[in-house]
Amino acid sequence: MEATEVSVKRPREEEEEGKEESVVNGISAVIPGWFSEISPLWPGEAHSLKVKEILFQEKSEYQNVIVFESTTYGKVLVLDGVIQLTERDECAYQEMITHLPLCSIPNPKKVLVIGGGDGGVLREVSRHASVEQIDICEIDGMVVDVAKRFFPKVAVGYEDPRVNLNIGDGVAFLKNVPEGTYDAIIVDSSDPIGPAQELFEKPFFESVAKALRPGGVVCTQAESIWLHMHIIEEIVSVCRQIFKGSVNYAWTTVPTYPRQVSNQSICYAINDGLRLYFLNSSYSIEERPLKFYNTEIHSASFCLPSFAKRAIQME
Amino acid sequence: MEATEVSVKRPREEEEEGKEESVVNGISAVIPGWFSEISPLWPGEAHSLKVKEILFQEKSEYQNVIVFESTTYGKVLVLDGVIQLTERDECAYQEMITHLPLCSIPNPKKVLVIGGGDGGVLREVSRHASVEQIDICEIDGMVVDVAKRFFPKVAVGYEDPRVNLNIGDGVAFLKNVPEGTYDAIIVDSSDPIGPAQELFEKPFFESVAKALRPGGVVCTQAESIWLHMHIIEEIVSVCRQIFKGSVNYAWTTVPTYPRQVSNQSICYAINDGLRLYFLNSSYSIEERPLKFYNTEIHSASFCLPSFAKRAIQME
Repeated sequence: MEATEVSVKRPREEEEEGKEESVVNGISAVIPGWFSEISPLWPGEAHSLKVKEILFQEKSEYQNVIVFESTTYGKVLVLDGVIQLTERDECAYQEMITHLPLCSIPNPKKVLVIGGGDGGVLREVSRHASVEQIDICEIDGMVVDVAKRFFPKVAVGYEDPRVNLNIGDGVAFLKNVPEGTYDAIIVDSSDPIGPAQELFEKPFFESVAKALRPGGVVCTQAESIWLHMHIIEEIVSVCRQIFKGSVNYAWTTVPTYPRQVSNQSICYAINDGLRLYFLNSSYSIEERPLKFYNTEIHSASFCLPSFAKRAIQME
Repeated sequence: MEATEVSVKRPREEEEEGKEESVVNGISAVIPGWFSEISPLWPGEAHSLKVKEILFQEKSEYQNVIVFESTTYGKVLVLDGVIQLTERDECAYQEMITHLPLCSIPNPKKVLVIGGGDGGVLREVSRHASVEQIDICEIDGMVVDVAKRFFPKVAVGYEDPRVNLNIGDGVAFLKNVPEGTYDAIIVDSSDPIGPAQELFEKPFFESVAKALRPGGVVCTQAESIWLHMHIIEEIVSVCRQIFKGSVNYAWTTVPTYPRQVSNQSICYAINDGLRLYFLNSSYSIEERPLKFYNTEIHSASFCLPSFAKRAIQME
């Protein structure tokens, strides 16, 4: 039972390192005909989707934007080499990051989305009949244009007349928001490398707290429960310092977020007083049945594996 | 905003197909220096881990067996090109497939494991003080040997004096089991392609039902909630025909089971009478804290996304 010679070619370590750098215009060219995600955020692993056709590829002011038709996940949106959504599984992310906060407070009226340029979160927010105003601040106009052109079932969110689109920096936008404006803020950012970095830092959450009304809720994507526990601990810790109400952490799974090893975690804070009841879905949405979210999934998403409970000292 | 020429080389479709076949002794040689999983069970996608060193590679009577040291997931066991476990995340699978059934019945005494040659499920079963006898039937002796040699923290399960190891076919083994022998049967199989195929079929579950005592419980891995809903529907349907008690379906996430798009689903049936209470963890294990499993995760794992609830008509 000795280890036998392995039949694949293994280049020397230096060459392998070079291989990881061979990202051309956002496409990691490691498997010809496939798109591969390789990033310092998930070292030593890659997820690949087979490419049927590249539909769009341009460099915006902020990042590389690619859309391709995959063989089994429908159309795929890629920013700076990282999958942002696929037609097949986008429901899991959009529904959870939206309905977790909106179903935990009564009658949300004013909602702000930071990031979320694809429009999927808008689509989900618009299912809530109580909502009167939906502001969105996306930094990259090309993401909005590309979503409207290639992902009409996602970008349909823009068709709601309650939506006000702002193209600009979310951090700057928040600073100009009058205190106590919003019932809910949803931070639908990309990873904390690149244009979204500030959205993971303390000054940003201070602006969020100021922009929320007392009892308002914020929900932000918080990377992978398996890979990025240190990022999650940091966000939870910052939120506990800033938000006067309850701070909780939920997780869900998105198959094509391997950068988050298929787990999307969500940090979730309430601005004043309200403590526990938002662990349950207390308020329902009145629209047609969803693909992923339901009241049981709402509660279940706050049940954490033991290692995560210990790390963020959840009771 | 027209799609520009993409800068990666894209071979013609026929060549791409050939590429998928370039699996050499179980290692998909698509990225030099990396291990890539490509399979008809998850077409159009691949998950890759960076290889530090190949430690073992042999063909057993049943399958290709590979162990490699990865750069970020510790040692990895691969059977027929499919990752079976990594040191980093094996806890999620082993704990869930074991404690879900064993914590839902009072004082399990006799437990049978079908498959599970790595010993991880044995390790988890042995935490239950009530258990008096742990039988295991693994078809491939090489898997047992390799686990003992390379994965001592997993194979530690074999050191429990209550364990009786049988190398042989699980289907044949079950046929010789006296009726009503076991309190719990755990089917820790590989995918339904290759040596494990029969473990997904009706005659097998009939043998399981016979071997279980009234009120006994079976738990089996049931592939991916995202990719294999048809397999899950079939297993649930078969179990509903055979088992007189409750049939339920739980899911969990295992980052390096991308073949299951990081979701490991578990079908779970009870042999007689008992209906609902096994959705909760009614009986606890007395050992040291676990890495993944806890009573809240137990209940949460039965909360399904809406699309899955509809597909298997769960109330």
